Amino acid sequence: MDKYLSEAINQAKLGLQEGGIPIGSVLVHGGQIIGKGHNKRVQQKSVVLHGEMDALENAGRQPASVYRESVLYTTLSPCPMCTGAILLYGIPKVIIGENQTFKGSEKLLEENGVEVVVVNSSQCIEMMQDFIKTNPKLWNEDIGQP
Amino acid sequence: MDKYLSEAINQAKLGLQEGGIPIGSVLVHGGQIIGKGHNKRVQQKSVVLHGEMDALENAGRQPASVYRESVLYTTLSPCPMCTGAILLYGIPKVIIGENQTFKGSEKLLEENGVEVVVVNSSQCIEMMQDFIKTNPKLWNEDIGQP
Repeated sequence: MDKYLSEAINQAKLGLQEGGIPIGSVLVHGGQIIGKGHNKRVQQKSVVLHGEMDALENAGRQPASVYRESVLYTTLSPCPMCTGAILLYGIPKVIIGENQTFKGSEKLLEENGVEVVVVNSSQCIEMMQDFIKTNPKLWNEDIGQP
Repeated sequence: MDKYLSEAINQAKLGLQEGGIPIGSVLVHGGQIIGKGHNKRVQQKSVVLHGEMDALENAGRQPASVYRESVLYTTLSPCPMCTGAILLYGIPKVIIGENQTFKGSEKLLEENGVEVVVVNSSQCIEMMQDFIKTNPKLWNEDIGQP
């Protein structure tokens, strides 16, 4: 497995250990991880810190040139909010752990010229499906569903 | 002027007083403001807390039913990230102070059934144009531009 996706999965597992939703992400620039994060809905009562957003936040303020040479790794297909953040900052490539459990706005990414690679890792799929089975309400809240 | 847009403008002014980017927002449900916020790029070194995101964050974890009956007020046309957050949570209506300085993803909102009202308040326009004139680099950073 790709070492960056592995680190995104580690972030997801960390979130699970904290009692949170197991979705993790890393932002990679020039081969280096410059930000990593995981969903913070439970831990910080945050409605904006999805895994991808948390990775961006932890990377700190970066010049546009850095985002435009970066790759975002995420364990799960990015929701509309995270998709929007990717488009805002002009991140050109997104590697997605899986899109079987939830398919986000991949089409919008591609329409805007973002390269989207879906790995469909069984580890990512199992982690998410196990979580949703035992926490359906929390999961629905995270994606704005009743 | 609409009292909710007034409060969004107050939030923007508060941001300016703090040395930040003057964009403010409020989330209104059942006639009550349930969250208010302003851009926190400078104050918290945040790359995700645009005004709209900060208002959502400050409203806290809400059930889907609340978002789906809410109106988001923002002093400036929402960028792709904030647009994505509006779509994620299914907020049906957005009131925009102005879209002369910056036109965000209004079309995407409308394509997804969101009602978009643009006020083009001279107060919002002046506030933003004055800020950009003296802080062009900071403004460009906020919208992911070089």
